[in-house]
Amino acid sequence: MTGFAHPDFSAPRFAGVPDARFVPAPADGVLPENFFSTTNLPTYVRIDGRWRMPQEPRMDAALVLDAQRELWVREGRRLRKGDLVAVGHREDGTEGIYVYADAFMGDSAEGEFKFMTSEVSREKPIDYALMARLLVEERERGGYPVWVAGPALVHSRARNDMAWFIANGFVGAMLAGNAVAVHDIEASIFNTTLGMASSGEATTGGHGLHMRAINKVRAAGSIARAVEQGIIRDGIMHACVTHDVPFVLTGSIRDDGPLPDVITDNLVAQDAMRRHAIKATMAILIATALHAIATGNMLPAFVTNADGSLRELATICVDSSEFVVSKLKDRGTHQAFGVVTNAQDFMHILRLYVERELDARGRGAERSRAVAAAR
Amino acid sequence: MTGFAHPDFSAPRFAGVPDARFVPAPADGVLPENFFSTTNLPTYVRIDGRWRMPQEPRMDAALVLDAQRELWVREGRRLRKGDLVAVGHREDGTEGIYVYADAFMGDSAEGEFKFMTSEVSREKPIDYALMARLLVEERERGGYPVWVAGPALVHSRARNDMAWFIANGFVGAMLAGNAVAVHDIEASIFNTTLGMASSGEATTGGHGLHMRAINKVRAAGSIARAVEQGIIRDGIMHACVTHDVPFVLTGSIRDDGPLPDVITDNLVAQDAMRRHAIKATMAILIATALHAIATGNMLPAFVTNADGSLRELATICVDSSEFVVSKLKDRGTHQAFGVVTNAQDFMHILRLYVERELDARGRGAERSRAVAAAR
Amino acid sequence: MTGFAHPDFSAPRFAGVPDARFVPAPADGVLPENFFSTTNLPTYVRIDGRWRMPQEPRMDAALVLDAQRELWVREGRRLRKGDLVAVGHREDGTEGIYVYADAFMGDSAEGEFKFMTSEVSREKPIDYALMARLLVEERERGGYPVWVAGPALVHSRARNDMAWFIANGFVGAMLAGNAVAVHDIEASIFNTTLGMASSGEATTGGHGLHMRAINKVRAAGSIARAVEQGIIRDGIMHACVTHDVPFVLTGSIRDDGPLPDVITDNLVAQDAMRRHAIKATMAILIATALHAIATGNMLPAFVTNADGSLRELATICVDSSEFVVSKLKDRGTHQAFGVVTNAQDFMHILRLYVERELDARGRGAERSRAVAAAR
Amino acid sequence: MTGFAHPDFSAPRFAGVPDARFVPAPADGVLPENFFSTTNLPTYVRIDGRWRMPQEPRMDAALVLDAQRELWVREGRRLRKGDLVAVGHREDGTEGIYVYADAFMGDSAEGEFKFMTSEVSREKPIDYALMARLLVEERERGGYPVWVAGPALVHSRARNDMAWFIANGFVGAMLAGNAVAVHDIEASIFNTTLGMASSGEATTGGHGLHMRAINKVRAAGSIARAVEQGIIRDGIMHACVTHDVPFVLTGSIRDDGPLPDVITDNLVAQDAMRRHAIKATMAILIATALHAIATGNMLPAFVTNADGSLRELATICVDSSEFVVSKLKDRGTHQAFGVVTNAQDFMHILRLYVERELDARGRGAERSRAVAAAR
Repeated sequence: MTGFAHPDFSAPRFAGVPDARFVPAPADGVLPENFFSTTNLPTYVRIDGRWRMPQEPRMDAALVLDAQRELWVREGRRLRKGDLVAVGHREDGTEGIYVYADAFMGDSAEGEFKFMTSEVSREKPIDYALMARLLVEERERGGYPVWVAGPALVHSRARNDMAWFIANGFVGAMLAGNAVAVHDIEASIFNTTLGMASSGEATTGGHGLHMRAINKVRAAGSIARAVEQGIIRDGIMHACVTHDVPFVLTGSIRDDGPLPDVITDNLVAQDAMRRHAIKATMAILIATALHAIATGNMLPAFVTNADGSLRELATICVDSSEFVVSKLKDRGTHQAFGVVTNAQDFMHILRLYVERELDARGRGAERSRAVAAAR
Repeated sequence: MTGFAHPDFSAPRFAGVPDARFVPAPADGVLPENFFSTTNLPTYVRIDGRWRMPQEPRMDAALVLDAQRELWVREGRRLRKGDLVAVGHREDGTEGIYVYADAFMGDSAEGEFKFMTSEVSREKPIDYALMARLLVEERERGGYPVWVAGPALVHSRARNDMAWFIANGFVGAMLAGNAVAVHDIEASIFNTTLGMASSGEATTGGHGLHMRAINKVRAAGSIARAVEQGIIRDGIMHACVTHDVPFVLTGSIRDDGPLPDVITDNLVAQDAMRRHAIKATMAILIATALHAIATGNMLPAFVTNADGSLRELATICVDSSEFVVSKLKDRGTHQAFGVVTNAQDFMHILRLYVERELDARGRGAERSRAVAAAR
Repeated sequence: MTGFAHPDFSAPRFAGVPDARFVPAPADGVLPENFFSTTNLPTYVRIDGRWRMPQEPRMDAALVLDAQRELWVREGRRLRKGDLVAVGHREDGTEGIYVYADAFMGDSAEGEFKFMTSEVSREKPIDYALMARLLVEERERGGYPVWVAGPALVHSRARNDMAWFIANGFVGAMLAGNAVAVHDIEASIFNTTLGMASSGEATTGGHGLHMRAINKVRAAGSIARAVEQGIIRDGIMHACVTHDVPFVLTGSIRDDGPLPDVITDNLVAQDAMRRHAIKATMAILIATALHAIATGNMLPAFVTNADGSLRELATICVDSSEFVVSKLKDRGTHQAFGVVTNAQDFMHILRLYVERELDARGRGAERSRAVAAAR
Repeated sequence: MTGFAHPDFSAPRFAGVPDARFVPAPADGVLPENFFSTTNLPTYVRIDGRWRMPQEPRMDAALVLDAQRELWVREGRRLRKGDLVAVGHREDGTEGIYVYADAFMGDSAEGEFKFMTSEVSREKPIDYALMARLLVEERERGGYPVWVAGPALVHSRARNDMAWFIANGFVGAMLAGNAVAVHDIEASIFNTTLGMASSGEATTGGHGLHMRAINKVRAAGSIARAVEQGIIRDGIMHACVTHDVPFVLTGSIRDDGPLPDVITDNLVAQDAMRRHAIKATMAILIATALHAIATGNMLPAFVTNADGSLRELATICVDSSEFVVSKLKDRGTHQAFGVVTNAQDFMHILRLYVERELDARGRGAERSRAVAAAR
């Protein structure tokens, strides 16, 4: 991943620039006119003559200075009347706010005739070796890769591979919806997903099986308790519970049930997701438009290294069609790297390459698990 | 792979069947009228009282008997004048040619070889006249068409057409998410959607405009109040408010803001949607997987007529790709009729056809509006 | 819209049927075991000897009888402990609940309500083990699998895997167009495809590399001679030449060059393809609409076994989108089995499974190659 | 459409630059090593100290200086041994060849955070008014718009609209394949396409109808004669014949028949297409990957105005998916403007807007037809 130095604020263009201006919020959950609307790029705010970066960066939010003169990025709905909010429209520093876009958005189409310049295409090679190396490096340095998945992951039987990544320390947190957990649990109990057998055939009476799976977990009280009681014996949720990997299941209007662990209020759910997003050092988004874009909205495009320098936050988006990746970028997650393929195949090959990478580094799964356990 | 025995030609249905008839080709590369057009299925031809299979079978070709009385499948272009070609249209053996479709085609299309049997395809014609007639009939009998839309409706500038349908009494209830309303209101206030001008170009500073639109409505307190205060002056939400058409805005984890009218808890939101779903007599689902499937889950496949008999609940699902319609059906909404096109174009042409249907029925928009108002 | 009469409950099949059985909910929001899971179809419940329809029908919910003996369809989460819920799995009336599927579902899925009934979907599992077994069996019995590929195979770096299948006796004939060979040869000479490096980046000056590759082969006179002269040193065409696997390169109006081996007249090209199609015992069609449909047109849907009986001609169609498979079926190749994934990933996993299948059969690659060589 | 001045060759960067170097072709159809591979952008070649533009520009070809010292862009296969071919890899003028990329490829992603920056998306508005104006202006100035269409145009019943554009002088030439003509003629004779009725239903026995249509035209000898004999009575091919609009039908390996007018050899077919491509002042590519990319390969990205200045060659590419447009750009047709919609809907709305534009200009269809006839 590309690394970046901070901008040189001693450059002439920043001379004589004023401090950023802050204005109180007029009411609870309402921003002042001309509030500065954040991006996911490194952002510097001039306060008391010093350029500072806000904490918990994300796009589509506001810059808030608290009573301790700490600087935060906050969603408008979380503000209280009187909170101090930065105002201004310019991102070039002339109003005391500088968005460091060059480093991250600079490269494309330098006026040369080329083939294959599209950003996302099923015709581009997929560099599994690179992704495997990134994942292994993340694990080694104690990173926090956030995995976000849609139900196709389960339908298409990539459950085993996902559970392997969870069990082996490659997952900081798992973000998904009710359906992922429901299909995963249906597969564990009935060996079907939405009533479809592993051969892909719809089974007679199968349309009710996901409802029966949900009902069993509701009766147990929670997924963790259903694991304890032996109702859920394998799969993704089982791996999260038994390996203490935190998961967030967020609700949607499409949900059946829902499972007891699902957060049904979207604002509460966003807050729960964000608690992981602010820790993320990598993101893997698989076969979901809703959850991928929701997560993309919350993620900065960068990670701050231990030495204070910045690097791109590796964001991999996997989908069967170019459209989802393109849409994610169109919503501002420009750093996303698109992989156009089937979720099942992606998981299978990625695991294979991670295993090879581990072998190449001379570390068997045992030791890796130990490293992971020690985190 | 499934294996098959040959048909039993001693069965009564094959008794008394004639030999196939062969006719000479009238010119090089030209087949005789009524030539038998082959399929790729096992085919048996009665010659001299014996059922024989031709060599080198393929579809879209002819059955040719050569001088040695060998039977071949040959492309028409390869024939010479005078070559003997089998004629006949029937594939059931009664003209001496039997296509063994049952074994191979048994569980679809009534066991007959056909082209274009897929359920949903961009290659199928779109019957706008029928949809327009259904909508006008629904209005005449006081039906309750539920419209469900995704943000592509607004992005692609079908706002005006949607507002027209609302204003003219074709909408029983409007179900959508935060984004539809946000983009619609951004368009009304700033003339952009997600900062994109109507020309399709991204505007400088445009990434914050949807946040500014949300903030203005939050400051006003509700969409209705923002309409009253002249903040929102046209579009979909404006039409709902001014024409008293009920709307439900349900939340998702992807939402910015959200707008004050959005129901953030998914279970409360489902209950609100269902209050309209149980009244629905027709459903039009446009450019949304999430909301379409959520609504499909709640809809019966039928409507009870005034006389107690049942009719299918007309359910139209419009999307740019076959996948969403197919997924909707895979989740049980089998009655859905798929239209594979762009939301903007769909709305424009549908409105055109509804206007024509109204004209044909000798009723101007004025009278229609009166009818609608009286509901 | 089609209208339907109610079923005739005086018919003999409904004689002696019991009332539906209702059981109290064990806890708030929890259904009793064996609850009846509703569909969206007209449903009739026998209560006190009378068949009644529930109010507010929807799928994925329960049948609830309230204190006033009114019958409702209710989501499980809305139930209170003790509410009476219908139980039973059968939908044919024999347990007092009848789902009127025939009228609504008559021409598909044997008149039964099911999920996941679409013919082709990215959400269906891919049975690589089965495909691997088919390929190995074909090789063992001396079958003639015809492989048909589009250029995405080469772009996305599945070249090595394709060359492996050729080298190891799994390819009877290779059918492709000019582009497959051009990109394959460009990759061998310049290590790019259409000027794109293996990392997916467009290279400076790269747009001319495929033209330079073509020119070198034109200068050599043929692909075989370019292999002999050491111009082409690896890849798909190299494998065909060195392993004596026949290939047909057919031309199209999109071709640059073309390569000297390309058959530029389409009728001559069809005849050349058909010489292999009539021998085919299996077909694998990867990432090409043009060549897949052209080949599908020529293939029978069946193979004649040694004993004269018939079996289905296994036809696998791989594409990134459902559309190509669906179109192939719409053109009459109904036997095609669709795999919706990326060509690169497909080839990689298929090879892996074939290697496993060979290992499981206790035959190393050496012996397999010997078998193949002896064909 | 953007206009461009020629580069200023008196600028210092062009001082001291040598003439381009020309080398004889080593054999028929073979280019010299290091031949200059052309792009579709304005290209200037220094000959005898003067910068000249070649005639008949296209990408993927060579620069050839003939005996009269005329400069041409020629496909390698058309060269004879000894023809003089420009050599060099650099496009910046330093080897006497300058590709004017800046003006055409300059604009994108100027390092600013924006939403909706993707090049092609179904979420972008479609500017029918602009396209209609371009078409009407083309007709007024006697331009030569080349239309290229795939069979979806006919399947989805846009036949009438396409025939209207032909009849009213908006079509310089029509390029298509066998299938477009076959389906169009099947529709005229049998009122089906591939056996599918206008309602979208497959008809019994319908799978042979396109073969019967082909056979009738083969018997007549040509499409024109089938029109004369009253076999073909309406539709696209009928309009071309009766309005003297030239058409080119190129063959492919997928063709049934083919029709007698189809050019079966791809090199002859490319030459026939190119005779229209070199005259093109606008291109409309609808629902075809094969023909769109084939045409894109042959088209310059620019048109030379009467005053010698340049303008972009308006190139509209319509498809149901983003992929085809993206692929067309990836093959170098960067000027293509993508419209993601259904072909039927596109044609219907475009015609509507063209009719409005004509009304706005106060010219009825009658006069327009007169103008067109006088061309």
